[in-house]
Amino acid sequence: MLHTNLSVGENGHLYFANVDTVSLAEKYGTPLMLLDEDRIRARMRTYITAMEKHFGEGSKPLLASKALCFKGIYKIAADEGMCTDIVSPGELYTAKAGGFPMENAYFHGNNKTDVDIEFAIDSGIGYFIVDNREEFDKISSYSAEKGIKQKILVRLSPGIDPHTHAKISTGSVDSKFGTAIETGQAEEFIAYILNDKNTELCGYHCHVGSQIFESEPFCDAADIMMEFSAMIGKKYGFYAKTINLGGGFGVPYTEKDPKIDYEEKIAEVASHIKNASKKLGIDIPQILMEPGRSIVADSGMTLYTVGTVKSITGYKSYVSIDGGMPDNPRYALYNSEYTFLIANKANAEKDMTATIAGRCCESGDLLGENIPIQTPERGDILAVLVTGAYNYSMASNYNKLPRPPIVAIKGGEDRVVVRRETYEDLARLDV
Amino acid sequence: MLHTNLSVGENGHLYFANVDTVSLAEKYGTPLMLLDEDRIRARMRTYITAMEKHFGEGSKPLLASKALCFKGIYKIAADEGMCTDIVSPGELYTAKAGGFPMENAYFHGNNKTDVDIEFAIDSGIGYFIVDNREEFDKISSYSAEKGIKQKILVRLSPGIDPHTHAKISTGSVDSKFGTAIETGQAEEFIAYILNDKNTELCGYHCHVGSQIFESEPFCDAADIMMEFSAMIGKKYGFYAKTINLGGGFGVPYTEKDPKIDYEEKIAEVASHIKNASKKLGIDIPQILMEPGRSIVADSGMTLYTVGTVKSITGYKSYVSIDGGMPDNPRYALYNSEYTFLIANKANAEKDMTATIAGRCCESGDLLGENIPIQTPERGDILAVLVTGAYNYSMASNYNKLPRPPIVAIKGGEDRVVVRRETYEDLARLDV
Repeated sequence: MLHTNLSVGENGHLYFANVDTVSLAEKYGTPLMLLDEDRIRARMRTYITAMEKHFGEGSKPLLASKALCFKGIYKIAADEGMCTDIVSPGELYTAKAGGFPMENAYFHGNNKTDVDIEFAIDSGIGYFIVDNREEFDKISSYSAEKGIKQKILVRLSPGIDPHTHAKISTGSVDSKFGTAIETGQAEEFIAYILNDKNTELCGYHCHVGSQIFESEPFCDAADIMMEFSAMIGKKYGFYAKTINLGGGFGVPYTEKDPKIDYEEKIAEVASHIKNASKKLGIDIPQILMEPGRSIVADSGMTLYTVGTVKSITGYKSYVSIDGGMPDNPRYALYNSEYTFLIANKANAEKDMTATIAGRCCESGDLLGENIPIQTPERGDILAVLVTGAYNYSMASNYNKLPRPPIVAIKGGEDRVVVRRETYEDLARLDV
Repeated sequence: MLHTNLSVGENGHLYFANVDTVSLAEKYGTPLMLLDEDRIRARMRTYITAMEKHFGEGSKPLLASKALCFKGIYKIAADEGMCTDIVSPGELYTAKAGGFPMENAYFHGNNKTDVDIEFAIDSGIGYFIVDNREEFDKISSYSAEKGIKQKILVRLSPGIDPHTHAKISTGSVDSKFGTAIETGQAEEFIAYILNDKNTELCGYHCHVGSQIFESEPFCDAADIMMEFSAMIGKKYGFYAKTINLGGGFGVPYTEKDPKIDYEEKIAEVASHIKNASKKLGIDIPQILMEPGRSIVADSGMTLYTVGTVKSITGYKSYVSIDGGMPDNPRYALYNSEYTFLIANKANAEKDMTATIAGRCCESGDLLGENIPIQTPERGDILAVLVTGAYNYSMASNYNKLPRPPIVAIKGGEDRVVVRRETYEDLARLDV
């Protein structure tokens, strides 16, 4: 099977985190999102342990909330000793409501409003990851007003193209994020910040992209950050105490994707940074990383009930399900590939090729095309694997479809962590 | 200006439906969605009047709810005498909650579940637009159980490519929707239905696509539907009393789009159908159409506040706003083009070319690239025109951004019809 938390029971059913998915579909209804909480916790520990071991004490991962954000995930993250990044006041509110300690939260984003900045400082946010001068000025003036010295990192564009999908490549110079090193604008900005008395510059942040399976883009980014730190150090006397390399490690969605050993990749980046530190004659800073997808993606699965099965003579076959782009817009947005199987026929051969169609009145509402699958009938349960990241968090109510519940499995026990949306919920904002 | 409900006041502000957009942004905050209710009502009347005039008495438009669905719009539609289509139990619930008479509602979709079908029949739905045999069997058996004779139309694939974007082209044979005429499956299905005693077949439905500015695709579809009706009539004695030509008339989003006169296009289709009727020697059936976009799109506008304005030396300029793909995913999904202007500088020259960036931590969160615009400053109000259709209805909470309110303007008076989502709303499903 694609991941180690998947197996097939003697009854021929797909098991996820050692629980029969078909009985979960029966118990909770579909569409249903499952989360393997044990695996999420294990993956968090992998990052925490590997980063401390290879980068040294104080280096640590931040959970990239945007991949999957609900109150309970912040409890899990806090339990395990993760820090977190948040990208909006809504994520900040959710983290607070989930009991997450604000001093371990880093506020991201290319466009923080003045109101956001006040809300975050009033909430005791640990760090801002400052994107631009306008928001820096607001952070500085509001810090002065509150009598604090706000800790910040500055987001830089390292100018790296990690060869991933254009829409999820964010490290290049021509980006809405951060300030470019190449153009001299980053140095100018840092010089400006170093003159400020209301903020404490801790270091730099960069992010090269997403769904990356090699360490090279991170090593390249680290080189650029370390060289920039050395240059600024020599010229202005400030050496970064912290370098945040962002997120981006990939997760296998299908058998075609490479496997990845996160600790091995972290070790490779660490060894690269040690060399850079020697070469440049500067200390190894605290290293932060921001895993999101690689914490939650393969800990998630979505179950649907099959409805219409349509074979158009001489054309394709369509298998329609009771969800679609509202709960998983990634195929519509990026043509993202997934692995599918019929959960109640998981032992059977994949003897059919079908287009998996959502239930929306929209031609683009597909989850996959040319998909090998066990021939399904109305009422069968379709499982879509590796849906933990950027599925629920991007979900809409298009066609007034309620969002599915999230059921977490821990030690073989299932519990609702996000309840199913109702029709009443959908109309609650209508006056 | 692009549409007749837009003007510039003496204060240089953009006016929408005769109201100063800058004062509305101040009053309600941003992001803010505006609706020109007078224009929506006028457009509904255009369709109702033109269809009755050109197709004859009994012919009428159904509002395609999916374009913009909230309780209040069903009140407006009912007021004006529109029928409606609904595509899910959530839309059905909302229509009922909005007081819409269920006998004037048509239930669409490629994958109605058994539960949906029971809910719709229990609610007294007027018509099902039947997509496939599996759901037909359920409609028939549940109608028998309830002792009713359910009225239905059958969705057919006419095999027409209207030359629009692949994702919104739905009339071709290879589609998840309906039953194909070309393959003989449609005839087989109709023969099957005509043997059923629990349902009343009223006629046929087709839908050729979206954002169409010519009458030709509708004329072609009408030809195919009329020929199919004549063929079935001769062979089985059933002539369609109703032909539903679906939706699809376009709306200008930018100055590059053609203008369109809906009554003129309806007249062209009607004249075509009259000829077909003569040629085939069959009566002109009741004609239905399903306008959605062309009812609401140009009656909508979204206002944002400008945040970061970033010029990357030697590269592009980015203007960031306090919304983005969560409230308008159409650029991310389809590269849909929009018209932008700075509402508080509407008289000024568009002297800048910029990428309009949303506030999400996602590179693909853009609303437009290479956009001519008045040079903005932090705090300015950015207006995006023609956002009434498929913006709010496709909105998500990605990055935990609350959905904007919808403020309707009628006779120069503004009122909230959908309230702004709060952070509490966003966490309400979290256990």
